[in-house]
Amino acid sequence: MPKKIAMLVGPNYEDLEFWVVYMRMLEEGHEVKIVGMKKGEEYISKSGGLKVVAEYGADEINPDEVDAVLIPGGYAPDKIRRDPNILNLVKKVYEQGKTIGMICHAGQVGISAGIVKGHRATGSAGIKDDLINAGAEWVDEPAFIDGNIVWGRVVRDIPAYCRLLVEKLKSD
Amino acid sequence: MPKKIAMLVGPNYEDLEFWVVYMRMLEEGHEVKIVGMKKGEEYISKSGGLKVVAEYGADEINPDEVDAVLIPGGYAPDKIRRDPNILNLVKKVYEQGKTIGMICHAGQVGISAGIVKGHRATGSAGIKDDLINAGAEWVDEPAFIDGNIVWGRVVRDIPAYCRLLVEKLKSD
Repeated sequence: MPKKIAMLVGPNYEDLEFWVVYMRMLEEGHEVKIVGMKKGEEYISKSGGLKVVAEYGADEINPDEVDAVLIPGGYAPDKIRRDPNILNLVKKVYEQGKTIGMICHAGQVGISAGIVKGHRATGSAGIKDDLINAGAEWVDEPAFIDGNIVWGRVVRDIPAYCRLLVEKLKSD
Repeated sequence: MPKKIAMLVGPNYEDLEFWVVYMRMLEEGHEVKIVGMKKGEEYISKSGGLKVVAEYGADEINPDEVDAVLIPGGYAPDKIRRDPNILNLVKKVYEQGKTIGMICHAGQVGISAGIVKGHRATGSAGIKDDLINAGAEWVDEPAFIDGNIVWGRVVRDIPAYCRLLVEKLKSD
């Protein structure tokens, strides 16, 4: 059963944490919407090489109509965590018990959306202290599922993260 | 059963045709060697953003000891098709009936290795005439399997290409 997935993007998004996951979801037959802070905005990847255009602004996405929100890392989370529409989307989808995927710095968005407390969590070592201060339990593992959150650690863990995303969305 | 895969790289390799496929193969549990013209050479992707280092030179890979060779596109095929060790590896692996994967401009390597004649083939429209002149039958489809070759057309067809690669390697 294909799922409706919102993938978040922003300036300096991590190239492979977006594109590998995006294409993996398409391979599964899921419908993926590319969601940024504003419809039509173009964002350059962290490496500087890969552009992506937001098909939708976060304000245009109805949380009731998506099955999952996936958040890549890079420096985009530092920007998009300031956007109330982004945070509202993540929070609402989480509260409905639907799947949230976060890898690397994506946990910054999870912190600001107030959804990480009480969860096992991983990501870039650069946000370890912030996750702990937000009430999460830091775990140094490649990828795992905790409740309705799928966590991935860093770029090299994308294959393990994808495997769990595919599995989780199949069971949803 | 995990497979031993050689993925070819070179200057201006197509970012996603390498990285998405590479990570997809790792997700399946396959062992992937990154093979260039010379061990330790660093290649910059076509977008300019993503570096990759050749873990092996093509001369170091024994065709008897790999199960498949996968070739990304971009402008790398134009360079690596000039390297006799690359062509020898592709030709030998092909002649042993093992899987060859080619996407986008990768067909240029297939042409120079002499393995495309009589095959249905696809890729970038920029090499259509060359594939036909080399004796292949041009097909404008996202991805398909013809004999022991898995073909992918262009970047947007990576999900379909990956699906077939996974399927083919499972049945090998």
